[in-house]
Amino acid sequence: MNPEFYMKKALAMARKAYVAGEVPVGAVVVSSDGGKIISSAFNVVEKSRSVLGHAEIQAIKKAEKKIGGWRLNDCDMFVTLEPCPMCAGAIINSRINNLYYGASDDKACSKSIFESGGYNHTVNLFPGVLREECLSLIKTFFAERRKF
Amino acid sequence: MNPEFYMKKALAMARKAYVAGEVPVGAVVVSSDGGKIISSAFNVVEKSRSVLGHAEIQAIKKAEKKIGGWRLNDCDMFVTLEPCPMCAGAIINSRINNLYYGASDDKACSKSIFESGGYNHTVNLFPGVLREECLSLIKTFFAERRKF
Repeated sequence: MNPEFYMKKALAMARKAYVAGEVPVGAVVVSSDGGKIISSAFNVVEKSRSVLGHAEIQAIKKAEKKIGGWRLNDCDMFVTLEPCPMCAGAIINSRINNLYYGASDDKACSKSIFESGGYNHTVNLFPGVLREECLSLIKTFFAERRKF
Repeated sequence: MNPEFYMKKALAMARKAYVAGEVPVGAVVVSSDGGKIISSAFNVVEKSRSVLGHAEIQAIKKAEKKIGGWRLNDCDMFVTLEPCPMCAGAIINSRINNLYYGASDDKACSKSIFESGGYNHTVNLFPGVLREECLSLIKTFFAERRKF
């Protein structure tokens, strides 16, 4: 398992969000054994007019459909940005094994959610995979928005 | 605005989940001014085979559709059980004004999410509305499950 390989796939999804004028975040769900890509998605909050448009939620929905159930306990997720509390909670509820993320988000405070230990399931965290590329895409997006 | 009136509606939804064999949680979204019911939903995790089947997520989805956007900043939510981190995060992301819940859930640790203050939006919390009735329904459900 080469984390950078899958984070590049997540980055490719994030670029699709960027082109669509959405906050550029991408996510892929991968089987923990073998690394087969099960689903991939990007942020569609504005297009879908729903907070559930976050990349992680979309990737989980697609993976659930493919697997035919809500337990993704043989799966890992790769996402370009540290998940918000909603997405962190969804990742725990889905029982995803390992979470690899790129850029950190000070507002996300997802670490305290993942590490609170109050749940039936623990997700292993691997932050900082291709951090610079992931962060650069987000920064460019917001710098361009501020021009208008 | 009489909170117990709306919590009774949420309880009626929770009973529908109970009858369907789902963990009995119900939620309603109400306009902050005037108290018009915008959406109501109950837990459908097993039926939908998705972690996104939680009552709060379903109620938010329906409200977004009705309103035609993801900003529910003129809305309150009533839910029979303290939200899990996923639902707490979705409620913050949706910019819901006031959250009324019935029974507390020690595992939920949603208070720390709501009170972390790291977000652009603060949700006002009103716990314990019809607490006994909400708790009793959940307790009965799990007591019956343990018999089998």
